[in-house]
Amino acid sequence: MANYHKPESKVVQELRDIANKIRIHSITSTQAAKSGHPTSCSSIAEILSVLFFNTMRYKVSAPRDPSNDRFILSKGHAAPALYAAWSEAGLFPVADLQNLRKINSDLEGHPTPRLNFIDVGTGSLGQGLAIAGGMAYVGKNYDKSNYRVYCLVGDGESAEGSIWESVHFAAHYKLDNLVVIIDVNRLGQSEETSLGHDVENYRRRFESFGMHAIVVDGHDVEELIKALHTAATTKGKPTAIVAKTFKGKNFPKIENLDNWHGKALGDNAERVIEHLNSLIKNSGPLLVHPQKPLKDDAPVVDITNIKLDSPPDYKLGQSLATRVAYGTALVKIAKNNPRVIALDGDMKNSTFSENLKKYDPTRHIECFIAEQSLVGTAIGAACRDRTVVFVSTFATFFTRAYDQIRMGAISQSNVNFVGSHCGVSIGEDGPSQMGLEDLALFRSIPGSTVFYPGDAVATERAVELAANTKGITFIRTNRPNTPVIYQNNQVFAVGKAHVVKKSDKDQIVLIGGGVTLHEAITASAELAKAGIGARVIDPFTVKPLDKETIVSNIRQCGGRAVVVEDHYYEGGLGEAVIAAAALERNTVIKHLAVGEVPRSGPPLVLLDKYGLSAKHIVAAAQEVLKI
Amino acid sequence: MANYHKPESKVVQELRDIANKIRIHSITSTQAAKSGHPTSCSSIAEILSVLFFNTMRYKVSAPRDPSNDRFILSKGHAAPALYAAWSEAGLFPVADLQNLRKINSDLEGHPTPRLNFIDVGTGSLGQGLAIAGGMAYVGKNYDKSNYRVYCLVGDGESAEGSIWESVHFAAHYKLDNLVVIIDVNRLGQSEETSLGHDVENYRRRFESFGMHAIVVDGHDVEELIKALHTAATTKGKPTAIVAKTFKGKNFPKIENLDNWHGKALGDNAERVIEHLNSLIKNSGPLLVHPQKPLKDDAPVVDITNIKLDSPPDYKLGQSLATRVAYGTALVKIAKNNPRVIALDGDMKNSTFSENLKKYDPTRHIECFIAEQSLVGTAIGAACRDRTVVFVSTFATFFTRAYDQIRMGAISQSNVNFVGSHCGVSIGEDGPSQMGLEDLALFRSIPGSTVFYPGDAVATERAVELAANTKGITFIRTNRPNTPVIYQNNQVFAVGKAHVVKKSDKDQIVLIGGGVTLHEAITASAELAKAGIGARVIDPFTVKPLDKETIVSNIRQCGGRAVVVEDHYYEGGLGEAVIAAAALERNTVIKHLAVGEVPRSGPPLVLLDKYGLSAKHIVAAAQEVLKI
Repeated sequence: MANYHKPESKVVQELRDIANKIRIHSITSTQAAKSGHPTSCSSIAEILSVLFFNTMRYKVSAPRDPSNDRFILSKGHAAPALYAAWSEAGLFPVADLQNLRKINSDLEGHPTPRLNFIDVGTGSLGQGLAIAGGMAYVGKNYDKSNYRVYCLVGDGESAEGSIWESVHFAAHYKLDNLVVIIDVNRLGQSEETSLGHDVENYRRRFESFGMHAIVVDGHDVEELIKALHTAATTKGKPTAIVAKTFKGKNFPKIENLDNWHGKALGDNAERVIEHLNSLIKNSGPLLVHPQKPLKDDAPVVDITNIKLDSPPDYKLGQSLATRVAYGTALVKIAKNNPRVIALDGDMKNSTFSENLKKYDPTRHIECFIAEQSLVGTAIGAACRDRTVVFVSTFATFFTRAYDQIRMGAISQSNVNFVGSHCGVSIGEDGPSQMGLEDLALFRSIPGSTVFYPGDAVATERAVELAANTKGITFIRTNRPNTPVIYQNNQVFAVGKAHVVKKSDKDQIVLIGGGVTLHEAITASAELAKAGIGARVIDPFTVKPLDKETIVSNIRQCGGRAVVVEDHYYEGGLGEAVIAAAALERNTVIKHLAVGEVPRSGPPLVLLDKYGLSAKHIVAAAQEVLKI
Repeated sequence: MANYHKPESKVVQELRDIANKIRIHSITSTQAAKSGHPTSCSSIAEILSVLFFNTMRYKVSAPRDPSNDRFILSKGHAAPALYAAWSEAGLFPVADLQNLRKINSDLEGHPTPRLNFIDVGTGSLGQGLAIAGGMAYVGKNYDKSNYRVYCLVGDGESAEGSIWESVHFAAHYKLDNLVVIIDVNRLGQSEETSLGHDVENYRRRFESFGMHAIVVDGHDVEELIKALHTAATTKGKPTAIVAKTFKGKNFPKIENLDNWHGKALGDNAERVIEHLNSLIKNSGPLLVHPQKPLKDDAPVVDITNIKLDSPPDYKLGQSLATRVAYGTALVKIAKNNPRVIALDGDMKNSTFSENLKKYDPTRHIECFIAEQSLVGTAIGAACRDRTVVFVSTFATFFTRAYDQIRMGAISQSNVNFVGSHCGVSIGEDGPSQMGLEDLALFRSIPGSTVFYPGDAVATERAVELAANTKGITFIRTNRPNTPVIYQNNQVFAVGKAHVVKKSDKDQIVLIGGGVTLHEAITASAELAKAGIGARVIDPFTVKPLDKETIVSNIRQCGGRAVVVEDHYYEGGLGEAVIAAAALERNTVIKHLAVGEVPRSGPPLVLLDKYGLSAKHIVAAAQEVLKI
């Protein structure tokens, strides 16, 4: 407890007063909105008051300054309290709080980065701590700055396994610049949490997972100040502050009672506010105020205009897997920008992200077999544009973190995902390892860019483009070797398809991606033998899809197309292509994809068994030609 | 340690011998397949030997007998060892093991229920324990049988938060019929696990999460027998056996070394097998053999032909949310079959699954805010047809368990999911709570059935149909009230759409689901005022889609349609409808959906803002009529 000074009693009272003001704002704003979570706000009022007016160092006027301490409200439904804290700190007028949840206000029901003081969207529970861990990792290892990261987690959401993945990550990497505060208010939405007020149980859990843990009364301002000071002076370990609190604290006849989750106080508001006002002692100007960072020590970084340090260098026809080209490209962009980093979930020798680890071990973060932590950490690392993040694992294992990726879009996050081992073409490992829904997953993410490169040249350019593309990007790579079909100087762009085979007499268009692009090329050659011209298109990006090129070529070829993908029928390349032509009269498009749970077997045998091989494409083309 | 008898030394040696035989089979089968994970098999050989030949009680000839003990290999990549154990137990000839990973063999790379001795597919890590917990919950609370459940978990996969959700669930519900054995072999795929061989650390974690924990040498047959006996006599708590093992145990020059994950031994096989053979002492007939259950005490249950105990009872035009009708229907089917159960993730007062809790608290399982555990527990509870399971939470939070749902399909699981709070129509809570990708998620699940009921009558029938439908089903319910449009005696069927408005002069078809179905009905009335006949179709099931009804009606209406959904553009109702008409020449279909991250606001304002209201449907219809 070096340097700890007990706060003056006047300071303590002011912090208590601010807490009660936060409570009042939470009530009045949810009253105005006629919905929201005032009781969940009330339990964290002292925690916010102490953090914002005593502990944290940040510039109120520049909430996203890189040297500021960070704060993440993982229990996003307590947003009104967070908005109230920033407002009391002086960022915007208190009167604005009354616009909570209105259509023309950014003070949404749960926090989003539409607000300049919010780094990430929260509201799907259990996700904040992984993001905080990513920020803390960057602060400690890349920025080497003094900023600290605070994450406030609800007790209900601590049932989410993702929280424990994140605790483990933070402890493993000794993130002593990270503090998690758990608001043990006992009550969930529909009943008591499984651990109730058993704060010692929480303490044991945090300790067993490697954190320093302190139990406090979460409504005692002095205890909170002391615990946060202890956290700041604890080296080699992150700290968990287990705060015993009461839901609806200081709301008479509501405090600590069931059935008060997620509702405005209605007729009770007036009397509760009256009580809260009676608790506020100081009315004059405040002694306490937010404190600025001691110094601006987070470096200026430039993560724009990322480029491969040398162009692709392959021979036409050379056979290699696009996952290998990913590893090559990752190192090439990392050579050109020191802020390019990669994260993996113990798959780095399969996804080839380990190439970066070999080049520069400090820029590869092993997240072990914990995909939710992997993705959350990446979102945190990308925050405030501190790094360019690439995240890889088997494509199908991103399903484990669909919720995190979805929230990543709400968070306006720039994270690049790379999924290897897609489709039945992985072979003998069987369906549990096959990415057959990854395109559906990433297409459904608003604003996403989905790359499906057809060869090694295209893959290198996809990596380069992804690094410079805002929003969530996804690159689908293949396990089997496929031939190089593009010249090294071929130009690629997001939303720009390539016609890879064409004649004036084409009667049909064949569209494929990755392994099925190569099957389509083979099918075209087969059809040519039968005197049928079949144009072949490589979409390059499945989203945005180059609608113009695809539709105009289909038109030129009699309105006929076959689209084939190593993916389930739903939500992938096929439906994207068919939807692109939905307003075209006079088109017929046959879709080949996987229609059942596949099984183990050799890759080529499986491609044929599930109807994706050149033979099936030829048959489909002949069928379409009869329509 | 009541009743514990130290095993005879001959028994101990036989169990050791069986372990080494399992090792040999794991090597020879992966040699034949030229791929697989022999070193991951080797670390668990004694554990399997003791379980299958000493501890577990089961009928070898009837592996899925309801009174058998259950075993789940969560680390599914060690499948060859599991296959070897069953083969040594006598289920099938040892020679069959050589068909591992072949296209015509069910001995796949990872276990699936295509094999009669496998309950669920594993291979996506960290999922087995939730399933085991579901089985144990059913055994203890519904079957009230003596069968016990064993789950073998890898140390690498214990980094998955889902494992800790499951440990918490099992401890909370005092599942003392459940044993988790963790194979601490130290090595992951690409490097050492984060905890290495720190078995005391694992012990602390299991204890802090409420389990009884025992550390053993996982290669010591006697220690394993004793620990499993202790587990069987420990009441009120599940037991975790932390087994220190070595990857590649008894494989000289491979044991405990890096870079041996997931590869056949190749040229090393012969010498390793020679060594293993030298360790085997007994060659004659075995003393040890699998033991049958003491009695057949799992009851016979009938979960077929589930029916509502009374028909829907609404008035046309009556306004209520389909989520409310879900709660009503759930109780109605539960009244008719005692094996109907419901699980929820602390959302029961929003999803209305709490209606069942009120009717019969023993049939509602609260899984708290841990969706992976929620879904895995449901899959376990449904195993061996012991229960009819309904699982509910907000639709978007199923994204948290996409991987578990995906694996549920591989597991041939019959679980019914019900997602409330879909789309922008939930209003002020904002995007983190809006299900806008749930149709894409559930459509991508092979063999799934996706219901999107348009009113309360349809919802009740959807629940009844789902209960009788094999595979994964999903019912999408709405938060806002909508009018009842069907008569109480309306007949519904999977894959059968309803034309809800029709005239002979219709020029266009409007298709919507849930709230947008009602907007389409309003739009049709508006268009009628302008002299335009607009037919309205309610698909009822988005998958399978009633292609025939939809396509034939579009054909009758000039090949024109508008499809509108409260969902993102990708993978939902719109793409399903457009894909259904892909091989029709002469159709044009306009798609209205949500194209960006939405914001907080009143439901009707949001429906309009994102282009889903009747006004926008009218405009879209007029646009299509010009094509």
